[in-house]
Order: sequence, then C-alpha cells, then structure tokens
Amino acid sequence: MSNTIIVHESGKLMISNEVETGKQMNALVYKGPGKKAWEKKPKPSVLEPTDALVKISKTTICGTDLHILKGDVPEVTDGRILGHEGVGIIEEVGTAVTEFRKGDHVLISCISNCGKCASCKKGMYSHCEKGGWILGHLIDGTQAEYVRIPFADNSLYHIPENADEEALVMLSDILPTAFECGVINGQVKPGDTVAIIGAGPIGLAALITAQFYTPAEIIMIDIDDNRLEVALKFGATQTINSNNENAVEKIMTLTEKKGVDTAIEAVGIPATFELCELIIGAGGHIANVGVHGKSVSLHLETLWAKNITITTRLVDTVTTPMLLKTVVSKKLDPAKLITHRFALKEIVKAYDVFQNAAKEKTLKVILTNE
Amino acid sequence: MSNTIIVHESGKLMISNEVETGKQMNALVYKGPGKKAWEKKPKPSVLEPTDALVKISKTTICGTDLHILKGDVPEVTDGRILGHEGVGIIEEVGTAVTEFRKGDHVLISCISNCGKCASCKKGMYSHCEKGGWILGHLIDGTQAEYVRIPFADNSLYHIPENADEEALVMLSDILPTAFECGVINGQVKPGDTVAIIGAGPIGLAALITAQFYTPAEIIMIDIDDNRLEVALKFGATQTINSNNENAVEKIMTLTEKKGVDTAIEAVGIPATFELCELIIGAGGHIANVGVHGKSVSLHLETLWAKNITITTRLVDTVTTPMLLKTVVSKKLDPAKLITHRFALKEIVKAYDVFQNAAKEKTLKVILTNE
Amino acid sequence: MSNTIIVHESGKLMISNEVETGKQMNALVYKGPGKKAWEKKPKPSVLEPTDALVKISKTTICGTDLHILKGDVPEVTDGRILGHEGVGIIEEVGTAVTEFRKGDHVLISCISNCGKCASCKKGMYSHCEKGGWILGHLIDGTQAEYVRIPFADNSLYHIPENADEEALVMLSDILPTAFECGVINGQVKPGDTVAIIGAGPIGLAALITAQFYTPAEIIMIDIDDNRLEVALKFGATQTINSNNENAVEKIMTLTEKKGVDTAIEAVGIPATFELCELIIGAGGHIANVGVHGKSVSLHLETLWAKNITITTRLVDTVTTPMLLKTVVSKKLDPAKLITHRFALKEIVKAYDVFQNAAKEKTLKVILTNE
Amino acid sequence: MSNTIIVHESGKLMISNEVETGKQMNALVYKGPGKKAWEKKPKPSVLEPTDALVKISKTTICGTDLHILKGDVPEVTDGRILGHEGVGIIEEVGTAVTEFRKGDHVLISCISNCGKCASCKKGMYSHCEKGGWILGHLIDGTQAEYVRIPFADNSLYHIPENADEEALVMLSDILPTAFECGVINGQVKPGDTVAIIGAGPIGLAALITAQFYTPAEIIMIDIDDNRLEVALKFGATQTINSNNENAVEKIMTLTEKKGVDTAIEAVGIPATFELCELIIGAGGHIANVGVHGKSVSLHLETLWAKNITITTRLVDTVTTPMLLKTVVSKKLDPAKLITHRFALKEIVKAYDVFQNAAKEKTLKVILTNE
Repeated sequence: MSNTIIVHESGKLMISNEVETGKQMNALVYKGPGKKAWEKKPKPSVLEPTDALVKISKTTICGTDLHILKGDVPEVTDGRILGHEGVGIIEEVGTAVTEFRKGDHVLISCISNCGKCASCKKGMYSHCEKGGWILGHLIDGTQAEYVRIPFADNSLYHIPENADEEALVMLSDILPTAFECGVINGQVKPGDTVAIIGAGPIGLAALITAQFYTPAEIIMIDIDDNRLEVALKFGATQTINSNNENAVEKIMTLTEKKGVDTAIEAVGIPATFELCELIIGAGGHIANVGVHGKSVSLHLETLWAKNITITTRLVDTVTTPMLLKTVVSKKLDPAKLITHRFALKEIVKAYDVFQNAAKEKTLKVILTNE
Repeated sequence: MSNTIIVHESGKLMISNEVETGKQMNALVYKGPGKKAWEKKPKPSVLEPTDALVKISKTTICGTDLHILKGDVPEVTDGRILGHEGVGIIEEVGTAVTEFRKGDHVLISCISNCGKCASCKKGMYSHCEKGGWILGHLIDGTQAEYVRIPFADNSLYHIPENADEEALVMLSDILPTAFECGVINGQVKPGDTVAIIGAGPIGLAALITAQFYTPAEIIMIDIDDNRLEVALKFGATQTINSNNENAVEKIMTLTEKKGVDTAIEAVGIPATFELCELIIGAGGHIANVGVHGKSVSLHLETLWAKNITITTRLVDTVTTPMLLKTVVSKKLDPAKLITHRFALKEIVKAYDVFQNAAKEKTLKVILTNE
Repeated sequence: MSNTIIVHESGKLMISNEVETGKQMNALVYKGPGKKAWEKKPKPSVLEPTDALVKISKTTICGTDLHILKGDVPEVTDGRILGHEGVGIIEEVGTAVTEFRKGDHVLISCISNCGKCASCKKGMYSHCEKGGWILGHLIDGTQAEYVRIPFADNSLYHIPENADEEALVMLSDILPTAFECGVINGQVKPGDTVAIIGAGPIGLAALITAQFYTPAEIIMIDIDDNRLEVALKFGATQTINSNNENAVEKIMTLTEKKGVDTAIEAVGIPATFELCELIIGAGGHIANVGVHGKSVSLHLETLWAKNITITTRLVDTVTTPMLLKTVVSKKLDPAKLITHRFALKEIVKAYDVFQNAAKEKTLKVILTNE
Repeated sequence: MSNTIIVHESGKLMISNEVETGKQMNALVYKGPGKKAWEKKPKPSVLEPTDALVKISKTTICGTDLHILKGDVPEVTDGRILGHEGVGIIEEVGTAVTEFRKGDHVLISCISNCGKCASCKKGMYSHCEKGGWILGHLIDGTQAEYVRIPFADNSLYHIPENADEEALVMLSDILPTAFECGVINGQVKPGDTVAIIGAGPIGLAALITAQFYTPAEIIMIDIDDNRLEVALKFGATQTINSNNENAVEKIMTLTEKKGVDTAIEAVGIPATFELCELIIGAGGHIANVGVHGKSVSLHLETLWAKNITITTRLVDTVTTPMLLKTVVSKKLDPAKLITHRFALKEIVKAYDVFQNAAKEKTLKVILTNE
C-alpha cells in the first residue's frame, strides 16, 4: 500500500494513487501538458469506510478533459488518471456504505458529495467541503478499468433494470450540467424564447432539457453548420451560424426587438458571454454554463436598469435522480448525443476523434470496458 | 394650450410642457448641463383621461437629479422640471380615473405604470411600455408646486389618515429601490450575512429594509465615517471604512473565509461592483442597485464555478403598498433618513446642502410647499 | 336606455341588462332553475369608458353553465344571458380603452379585471374588487350575438393573425383554469408522477398542460371508458376506471407505495377529493380544480405529518398570454378538445349534446355566430 | 448485550433497548398508558458505525410526551425511554462518524436523518426512510442520563462556544417546528397580517419566529389569559380570548373584512382548524402545526374559489443551522420560553408542573443532568 498526499488549492488534503499492492489495471494517465498515455496503474481499493470500488463498464470523454490536457487546470498533476463520467458495477464497498453492495450496477456522478457538510445540506454538492469535482481532477478518475468512489452512498445512483446504460453515461455530467446550470438557472418557462450559444454536447444537452419546460422558441447559435443541423433535429426552432449572420440583429428581429427571456452561454469565452448581454430582454436570465479562463466585460451602463439575472454554477448533480426517472419513462433520450463508440483500450484514438469534433462530427463518444 | 412633443430614445412619444394658458406656478427647471433655476412655469393640467393633477405638499432631491444636472442623462432636455418623488393633494382627475378624487392625499411613485401592457401585467412596471421612470425625466416632475401624474390610478397611493407624510416621501423612490433592487433581489434571509457597499441614502435604506428578513450580520462599507456611524445606529452589525481598512480581508476574516451570502452594490462604480465579486460566497447573491456609467470586469474565470447570482433592476415600486403597511404599523421608520428641511422655494439652497453631503452630513432633505 | 341595478352578494353593485333602445339581438337567456331560451334581447352598448362591445364570432358551453341552469348558482337571476367564453370582433370601445379598437379580433377572458385594485396588482384577478367572474353570472354573457366587456384593456387579448380562432375559445376558461388551478398550483415538475381525477374537459385540459413540465407519469382516473381512451391519446401514461378497479390500490402499486407527487381534483365532489387524500405521497400537492357544493373530510389525523400542500383557486387567467404563445408556436393544440360544432342559433340543441356527454362522447362544443 | 427488535408500522425494523451489559443509568420510562417511572435502565452504547453516544446535559418535556403518556401514540411501547430534545456532550462515536468527536458539545435534533435516502436528499428529513422522529418514540430518547443518537453526523449540531445551552434546548424541536411548519409554510411576509391559534409553547415559538419576516400584525388567539399576556410581551399586536370574544368577528373587523394573510394552527383540534378556514383571506395560507387525532371539515363549498393554500408538515429540522446562527447573533432569544427549571432526577415533578400548565403558568421546563 502506498499513498501520495496532495494538497488541493482550497486547502483540502486529498489522498491520491491509492494502491492495492500487486494488482494492476489499465488507465488513461495525464503525463503533464499535452501528454497522456494508456498504461498500467495499480488497481485502486477501498480506503475509507464510505468508499466503493467500481469496475467501469462504460465511460466517455468530456471537453474538460481536453482543457486538462492543454495544461489549463494546474491542480491536475502528472500521473493522474483522467475521467469523471461513467457507469459500472460495484466490486467492493467500505463498512459504512449502506445503499450499495457488490454487483450493483451504478451511475457515477461527476460530483462527489459527503452529504454532511453545510454545502451538501443546502444541496450545493459542487461545493462539498470534502468532495465536489474531484474525480479525474484531485483524485484518480473513471477512464480506467476500476475507480475508487468516495462517499459512495451519496455519489452513486442505482441503475434500474433494463435501462440503457450507454445513455446513462450522459447523466454523469453533461445532462445535469446543462439542465442545472443552463435550464434551471435560466428559469426556462412554458412559452418563453430561449437562446443557447454553443451547440456542442453541453449546448445540445441544454437544448434537450430546456424542452422539459416547453418554451415557445429555442434559438441555437454556433459556427458549425453540422451541429446546427443536429440542433434542428433535437428541437431547436431557429438556428443562427454567427459566422454568416449577425446574431444580435437576427434575434432582435425574431423577438420584435424585445430580446430573449433566457440566454444560455455554453461556450466559455468573452465573445459568447457578451453576446448574451446584447440579446437578453428586460427581465431576462443569462445562465452561464461555459468554463471561462478570462474575465468578461459586464455592460452595467446599459444593464443596470434592465432587471436581469446572471447566474454561474458548477453542477451540483441534485437533479440526477429526476433525470434518471425521465430516461426510464422515455421522456428523455440522451443516447442521441452519442456519435462514436470505442473499446476502452482504444481511448487514445477516441481522444483524437473527440478533439477533431468538427471534422469527425463528434458529439459524445462511448468507451466500453470489454 | 400649447404642447411640445418630444421623442424618447425608445421611440415613445412624450408630451411635455403641458400648459393651461395663463396659470403659472414655480418650479425647479433644468437649464442644460450644470444649470438649474427656480422659475415661473405654466401650471400643468389634466391632458389624458387617466391623468391626475397633484398639488405638491412635500418633495425631495435624489442623487439621480444630481446626475441629470451634470448632463449625464441626455434624454433630459433644457426646460424640464426635475423631481420624481413627493406627496401631495389631488387637485383634479381625468374622466377615466376611478380610484382617486379631488382632495385625496397621495403618495407619488417615481415609476408611472399603465397597468395594461405586458410588462405591467408581469409586475415589471419599470419597463411599462408607456410609463416607467418618466417623471422629471421625459415629462415634467415633482419639484414644483403642481405636477401632472399620468396613469394616476396605478401610479399614486392613498395616504392613510394620520400618517407621517414626510416619512412617506421616502417611499416614492429610495425605499422601494433599496428594498426591491437590493434586498429582495439579494434574497436576504434570516441568519444571513449581508454586505452593503455604500452608506448613502440608498445604502442606508437597504440596511433598514434588509432587517425585514432578520439577517444575522449586516456589514456596511463606505469611506465616510459619519455615514458609517449612522449605519451602526440603523442596525449595521459591522462597519468598514474601505479607505482605512482592506475590506476584502476584513470580510473574509469575519466570515471565516466563506464570503457573504448577499452583497448589495449601492454606489455605481466599477470598484464597488468588483468588490462585491471578491467578497461574495459560494451560492451567494450580488444585487446591483447603483446606477452605472461604465462597464465593469466580471471575473468569470473564478466566478463561473461559484454558483452565484447577479441581479440588476430599475425599481418597479411593486412593494410600495407593502412598505406603506409597514410604515403605518411602525415596523419601518423611514423618517430617520431625513436630515434637513427647507421650504420648497428654498430648493436651490437645498440642492447645495444635498450636494455637499459629506460636509453637511446630509442624507435626505425635505422640501415643503408652504 | 333602461338599466337594472342588482346587488351582488359581495356587496358590489352591478349594472345589468344595459340596452341601447330599439336595437335587438338573439341570446341564450336563463329563465330560472331548469329553464333557458334562445330569444330576443336588447343589444348591449358601451356604458363605461373602459368597456368594449364585442360581436361574438364563436362561443362554447361550460360545465358551470349547467350548474347555473340547475339553480345551483343563486346569484344568477332570471333574464341573465349566459356564457363566459368566446372570441369575437370589437364593434366599439369606450373612451378610456387604449389597447383595442374597432375591428380587432379578440379572445374574451372569463375573468374581468380592473387592473387597479389590490387583488389585480397581486395578479389575483379572480378576486378583482370590481370584476372577477362576472360574465354570464352577474352581468350578461357571451352566448349571444353581442356582449359588453368591462375593463376591456385588461380582459381581452389580441388574436394573432392566422391563429385558429376555434382553438382559442378553449383559452377563455378551461385551459387557464386547468393550468393555473391544477398544474401550476399542483407544482408539476419534470420526472413527477401526477394523478388527475376526472377526465372531463377540465381534467383533459390539465392532462394537456401538465405535459408542459414533462412529468414522468400521468395517471388519469374516471368512470367513463371513452374519456379514458381520449386521455391515453392525449398523453396519459396510465388510466384507471374507478368503477372497475380500486384506484388507491392500483396507484400504490404503480408508485411502489409512495403515492403521487401531485393529485389534481377535477370533479368537485367529496369522494374524488378524498381519493386525492388517499393517494398523495409525502411532500405532495393536492390541487383542487373542481367546483364543490359540500364540505369534505380532511383527514388531518393522518395528513398532519405528511408534509403536503392543498390548494384551491378560482382561475386568474394570468397565464392567458403565455398560453396564447404556446398555441401560436404549436406547442399546445387545444382544438383537440372540440368534439361538436353548431351554429350559435342552434345553441339549445348544443346544450342537449353537452349535457348528454357520456352518450354523445362530448367534450367541448363550438357555437359559431354565422 | 440484549436487543429487542420492534417493527414500526411503516415496516421499518428498529433496534431498541440496546445495552452495554453491566452499566446502568437513570431514565424516565414509559410504563404503558398513564404510567411512567424514573428508574434504572442499561446505559446505551454505540451500535452502528454512524451512532454517537451522548451524555445529556439538559433536556425538556414536550406536549407530545403527554400525548404518549395518555396512550395516544400506540407505537410507543412499554419500557421506552421518552424525550426527543436536549443538549449534551459526546461520550463516544462510531467508526463512520466524521463530524463529531468525544467531548463535543452538541444540540440533539428531534429528527434523525440518514442523509442518503430520497427524502433526505430533498431536505424532507421528517420522512427519512431510516430515521425521522424516532427518539423517544421508536428508540430510546433523551430524558435520561445518556442517549444513543443514530446518524450522528446528520442529526447533531455543534454548539458554539459561550452559547446559552439552555436556550438551545428549544432548538431541538419547538423552534424549528413552529418556524418550518408554521412560519415558512405559512409564507409570512413583511407587511402581512398573521393569526396564530394557540399560545402554548409552539404557538409562542411561531410568534417569535414569525417576526423574522416583519409582518405588520400578529393576532394571537387562545383561551388562557396568562398566555395571551405573554404573547403581547413576545410581540403580538393583538390578542383574542376566544372564550370571551367572537374571534371571527373580531378578526374580520381588524382586517376590514379581508381576513388574514396567514393562519397558523397550533392546537390540533377540529375547532381551531375550522377557525382558520373562517378567518383566512383570499390568497391566504393556512399552516397546520398541531398534531391532530381526528379529521376536520374542509369547507370547499366556500374555499374552492378562495385561492388558498393549506399545508401540513412534520418538522424537518432543515432550518436548525440557520436558527443556531440567529441565536448566536442575538436575533432570537428562545430562552424566554423557559419558565421552570429542575434537576433531571426531579423529572416526575417537572411532568406535573408541565401538565398543570394553566395553573403553574408553565411554558417550557429545563431539566439539568447535574
């Protein structure tokens, strides 16, 4: 047994690279900026009474993983196993785990929550004092044959029998992220006009889940015609390629100069956030979903009197049980976001396809641990 | 009868300078940037069936009037009578006015609302298609012996018998502004920690009305020691003179590094808004009240994951009936914001005292039409 | 001109039977319990500056009209023209009406609201001090060639060009009633399990509008197999004929003994309300829509600890603008509630068909003023 | 070690009478209807990894304990130690307890919550699948020298240094009960008129916590003049002795026939609930707090159109952290509810004083384990 203690910038102590001596597995490992490898790593084991050890069945790659690989997320250190999404089968549980047992099929949440701290009691799991987004970030993640899941009772979900497990991989992160940060925070209501900036997987997940509330119009804005075509199939009522058209002018025409009720930012750059500021109507809601690396200009000189709300949020995954119900009852079909499938051992190739999204027309990839 | 038609930048046609030939009154008139005069103007009259003509009993001066005088509000044109606050007595009503009649004592709202458009139906009177903030802005205002009030049934409030009419002048604008834009939008709750940036009349009105919800701590930040002393008397639990102390550090110490639940911006400059960004806790609310002339930097590179809400709002005055009840039931005493009293004809002098607020220790002035 | 003044039980004075001497029209008139007639009545005219005179294009019959005919609504007096639903064309407007003019196609709301009283300012139009449900109740109604509409600016809605006017007749009453009293008050959310008791027009309208919020399951309960079949076509996921099956047992089986999240009562008798009490889950919502003539037993001895909410509501029609948007954007198709069509002059026959709903398989009838 | 397994009516298995062989303590034991004794019982011990063993410092008696003694709560069996309120010091914790350790001063919640089940995740701890109200009910309680607390991390709260521990005993049950079931569910708002039926400890706790939201008027109704006098001291603006006055008439006069915005039922009998139905205004909220043994008549024949909300709730204790903050910041002083103090061993005498509340002018008693 050999542990490495790392210190998270928030001051949390994280135990990493927990190993059961002798046992090995394969995993996708971050090797510093620009580098990754599919290589042998020690198989993890249960370390805390609240842990579960999960054998991964299926996982995927997130845009955030690409950010990490670029070196944009400095708290991810050389040697870290990436990945924070997936479904699997419980191999072992700690002594304090009461809701799961060996053999259970489980959905892994990208957010680990202790269920006990002030943030967890408020349902703000993203700011759990001991958890939050730690998988594939501060501790080893899911792009591996096995993963250790802390606070298993609060961070895993039972997969109902006969459920489409591939579809459920979408519920680890992108569906709750798009729904909570974009749709719920954006206060989408029946009859509303919604604009979604960015038709990548997250923007499309916002498009799908916005329809839970039956807005009258959903305008999708992107610069990739393929993705806009997909958006139309997924229920967008209007699309705008902002490379070819003036998005502000078109939206003002479509809304009789009123602007939109909700603008969902699903890109993460100043230009797209500032577009939201230009198209939001009086009384409207700008819901930020994108991960930003720079500050943006907030035009309070016009917005101060416009009665708007701007929200930011790291997903809490509080809606995961509800999303599971809607998948089971066929009200939500997240499988349509999956464009490519690989064996888990082909993950390096899968990263290539995911990175060349425009050329490959990639949305989400599924990696199966065969 | 002679009318001047002006075009508001929003495209609205506004009738100004309505005159009943021959009758005159005194009024405080904007004469272009930097200039004002107490001079004769034609007495206004009822022009629309929904109008009321009100004889002003008491009025006051607002920080916004100072902005106008500097030339910062270009849609206010030379010749405009200023003022959007006051109480008075109905002199005459139009044929469609059903809720008021001659002799009624009334509170004038700074926001005129038609009660019929989509914004009014949503309770967003500030964006009324025909009204909004027009008094002393797009039409003649209340710093005069008489004022024409459009949409009287929806823009005036009956003053209960024996009510303190001076106190009620505070309900024309600053109390609902501080309460709606700051306290309600800031979602102040029992047990919360609230920071209010700016201890001027609006910030102090936020301090008073925040106590409707019994926060545990209210931290008041300003650079004027006199105002901070007043804040302590009005219920602040902590004060910070940000010229002498590092406000961010002090707040982080006071909150055990968590930041505040609500930050209310009541100044209107980039530095104070950006201070709010630095002290807001995860899950917190920044409520902008200040009138801004420039854009600010929104630090989404740190805030994107902080689960915060930022709100802007021009007061709707939807809470005026409730505020009236709390004044009548002695739960709210807005008279304590009044520091100086003048006759209405001394208004030029009153402007001086209001402008030299630090030296004169001025909060709000009352002008009585004797 | 000859008016009759009647006193409403609330103490409101209502002017009835307003006549423009000499002009006549045809109308369906209540002649005391059990009796009605299609007969000549004086054509109404604009009496107040806020009135509009509307030529009816299409109207319908409501379950409430049947109650009135039975004598169950004693404030409806002999000679009253019935009806509170319809679309039409403005013939004339009063001097204070600003939002409508002659020739406008309009949707008539079953609720008249002055837009000025305390209730209207809160959006509780149903309790408007001067309006509320008065059409076909305290003043003459819409089952006539012409109708006088008080407070026209706040009680009529513009019909967009090319809209299906027949479908919009459903928006006068049953759609907002089912949506506001049942779905909104019942707090239907994505993923929820909803039970609707009663598959008549109101219950079916609740079924249609509940789907705005994407519940996982909607269980429809009635004793008429035809209506349950219609419910399946309209989106119910389960149906129960409570004459043939034990509804409580079946629901407890379907919900794994948890009970439902929302139970919507759309009948109006003790048995159906008490069924809601038996099937509601902990934390659930019972939303009463039915018009009740008797008290019911509220089983607080079991419900006191069940964390439930019970709501009652007379429709406010605050959602009418939103419902209009969803019809225009094809998210809502209320026309499917229409089963029979007649000329207005055939209204007595239409009443027969509406009254024999089970035999005739009637939901809503449309009466066209040809 | 000897355990007794009992089956809760909900089907939950509860382990009772857990004993560490040989060690003894004193406790107040229910001996069947009408009987209780202060007698030796085995000292409890940690049985589950999530348990804590707490040495009681101070406890109290609740009206519910009197109900149990009468035999009204049949799931409480002979031999059960009563009590579900108190503060104490941790003696020992199970292996999965991470938030507390030996020596910590703690507040005990009357509700035990696992923090993992669907109800707990929704914040509805009262319906926790494994917990809820079990102390002094399904397992042994706090009227003893020691108590075993299940799910300690989620069911205990740290007592801040220098806090008044006696005052905090009021936070185990009555303050959160009155606040959550009465004030929050009753949606008390600034400026509202609130009626509270019943001026016992719970009603008075509702009175105190209702003031968090600054209602304009709080009308207190009871039949005990002493309690009504206390209510006036605690902030009631009006009191009604319903034995001497017609409460409905007086309230209708006080409210200009509008009725109240919120009616809080804090007695638990049909007469007081039905009084709430008679005094509630249109759009108002009836919040039930009382524990009812019989059904009541719900007058839907008048209430169906009144736009009211009725709520029931078993306290969830989700507001306990907030209430703790308000006590620490001196915004709330629950100690004023304490009228009598005894040594814990005098508990039988304390029960007498608590039962003869009218004669002894008792509100809450404090029992100290000396």
